[in-house]
Amino acid sequence: MDRSSRIKGVLAGGSDGWEVFHRSRAMIAAGVPVTELTIGEHDIRTAAPILQEMHRSALGGHTGYAAVPGTDALRDRIAKRAEERTGVPTTRDNVVVTPGGQAGLFAAFMAVCDPGDAALYIDPYYATYPGTLRAAGARAVAVEARADHGFLPRRADLEAAAGGAKALLINTPNNPTGVIYGRETLEEIAQVCQDHDLWLVSDEVYDTQIWEGAHLSPRALPGMAERTLVIGSMSKSHAMTGSRCGWIIGPEDIIADLIDLATHTNYGVPGFIQDASDYALAQGPAFEEEISAPFARRRALAQRVLSTQNVVRSVPSQGAMYLMLDIRATGLSGSEFADALLEDQHIAVMPGESFGAAAAGHVRVAMTIEDNAFEAALRDLCRFAEGRASRAA
Amino acid sequence: MDRSSRIKGVLAGGSDGWEVFHRSRAMIAAGVPVTELTIGEHDIRTAAPILQEMHRSALGGHTGYAAVPGTDALRDRIAKRAEERTGVPTTRDNVVVTPGGQAGLFAAFMAVCDPGDAALYIDPYYATYPGTLRAAGARAVAVEARADHGFLPRRADLEAAAGGAKALLINTPNNPTGVIYGRETLEEIAQVCQDHDLWLVSDEVYDTQIWEGAHLSPRALPGMAERTLVIGSMSKSHAMTGSRCGWIIGPEDIIADLIDLATHTNYGVPGFIQDASDYALAQGPAFEEEISAPFARRRALAQRVLSTQNVVRSVPSQGAMYLMLDIRATGLSGSEFADALLEDQHIAVMPGESFGAAAAGHVRVAMTIEDNAFEAALRDLCRFAEGRASRAA
Repeated sequence: MDRSSRIKGVLAGGSDGWEVFHRSRAMIAAGVPVTELTIGEHDIRTAAPILQEMHRSALGGHTGYAAVPGTDALRDRIAKRAEERTGVPTTRDNVVVTPGGQAGLFAAFMAVCDPGDAALYIDPYYATYPGTLRAAGARAVAVEARADHGFLPRRADLEAAAGGAKALLINTPNNPTGVIYGRETLEEIAQVCQDHDLWLVSDEVYDTQIWEGAHLSPRALPGMAERTLVIGSMSKSHAMTGSRCGWIIGPEDIIADLIDLATHTNYGVPGFIQDASDYALAQGPAFEEEISAPFARRRALAQRVLSTQNVVRSVPSQGAMYLMLDIRATGLSGSEFADALLEDQHIAVMPGESFGAAAAGHVRVAMTIEDNAFEAALRDLCRFAEGRASRAA
Repeated sequence: MDRSSRIKGVLAGGSDGWEVFHRSRAMIAAGVPVTELTIGEHDIRTAAPILQEMHRSALGGHTGYAAVPGTDALRDRIAKRAEERTGVPTTRDNVVVTPGGQAGLFAAFMAVCDPGDAALYIDPYYATYPGTLRAAGARAVAVEARADHGFLPRRADLEAAAGGAKALLINTPNNPTGVIYGRETLEEIAQVCQDHDLWLVSDEVYDTQIWEGAHLSPRALPGMAERTLVIGSMSKSHAMTGSRCGWIIGPEDIIADLIDLATHTNYGVPGFIQDASDYALAQGPAFEEEISAPFARRRALAQRVLSTQNVVRSVPSQGAMYLMLDIRATGLSGSEFADALLEDQHIAVMPGESFGAAAAGHVRVAMTIEDNAFEAALRDLCRFAEGRASRAA
């Protein structure tokens, strides 16, 4: 039986970019110890008090259908937090709770694009982005943010792609590059969106992982609240990746439509997970810092390790739980490097190419293992790269 | 800013059919006691042992990203259960776990329809169906199952609509009518699907609520396993409506595509909810009977009450947690009756019209309150109907 062209086209016949990850998992399953620096997930689990609150809510009877838009309490909490962080007036009517940030991204593009509409995204990109846009029926159009421009999109490139498009997807702090978009970049993006009447979908799920500078939400720029959908999530900020609880913040009318879409496509998020999320958010910034602290520490540690050699160069890391490493001095592509590193050193990293053409010649290192093991792996990676570079020279 | 035509069209500018429900909730909020027979949700909460298992899993560390297709254990369990109940060979590769049955329905239509394709559904229908098909970009085409044909679809009506369509959605046991499709009806449906190369999406979430006859899954009919997607859920069978855990069972190739779709649209279901669902399913049929028993009891009770009068006629109730009552002898439409019953008697029922044109002149009664209160409300409803009928005569 024939499936829809749409679903067959989600991957567009290509790779899903996770080959090294899958190979490393297979090695581990076969008993080979592999140091995994691939996946963007904390090395801690969700904190016990949050899970206790979830259990309390469930035992207390919040196990029936929860309000589809999200509970009033959680929507209010998310709205208040967004207002405090951005200064933009925000109420529960600007918020819909979604079964995770990924579901929020998909719903956002269902809401702003009709089938065939062009949706722009920035390359390098989080692996699911183009498939998510295609799943929503949009034509996914990459705009390169080149390594030699610090992985920031250039206004001219955005302008060149914006004609006739309906939406632009950005992600700051950025996965995979660790770059934070500063005010100047965001003002250029805002101008392009206003000049070309684009929706801006702003994925800000790493907004509590800031190592240098500050996070600025483009929704706070003049004229942008009315055309911006912000994607948020409990996953990265509260080590709740498996709870699948996220949200979209945007104008009231499109949020009302998104609630209607939720009624017809998933019927909301478990009430006990929403109560646990509300509890977690109520712990405030101190708890969020506690969750992000290991990555801050490992980034500092990585800077020290990397400063002792000249082959592997780090893209200036400003935020998020990743390091983007330029390994072009080895003469290898990102994929070749990742393959060889896994084979030789039993260290798994993601090839830059998994995140788009603009990240070729790089690898992404997730800072998601214990500090000593992380430092040792990074030293091994550098030594391996030096060996390859001298062979290439 | 303009939203997509798609999202603005989910409700197609119409009512969502829940006006009586919302009005009754408003009355309750204002302090007026209302007997609610509207929503399809158990009057019990999820059983404590299931919640304990969820907590055990969460505390045990299953709080990170779970396998997107579903855990091996849960997929195996669902496959085994389906095979036992239908005789159709089923493995985990035929199963994808979804964030609820509603998400499964939506994903199924994403997978079988391209934008603009016609998808058939049977009227009367569960309230979200046409909006779900439209959200997936399909053209939602109703096929009437008329009251004078026992709310079963007729082959001729299916044939007349099937030309050029891509899929047919059925629901047995049926919400709102309580009718179960027998072998003859299902064989006709299967023949139409094969003659017109349609996918059959079979919503079987009420398959543990059988009061008369037996549930037959159309996937078990000759030649149908290859073109049938079965939607299942923990919601109704295990009183886990709020846990949002469902599944799709179908051919391996489309399941593989659906897993890919899940990666790009929601990234799976919480691991601790999957573990709780696995535990719940492991309790076997005895537990499922325990959950369905109150509805069986109240249906018997309703038959006794209804047999004492001649104005309100019950559609023969064979399954599911609802009664469909024919109130045409009152001279009122379903909507008028439901409005007047709420006003006069403070009893909230759903107008048949909320579930499509074919259910006009009927109301749907959810058997979801405690037995004595249910019996009293049903007696009041009958007395009210008799009063209206004598006024109309």
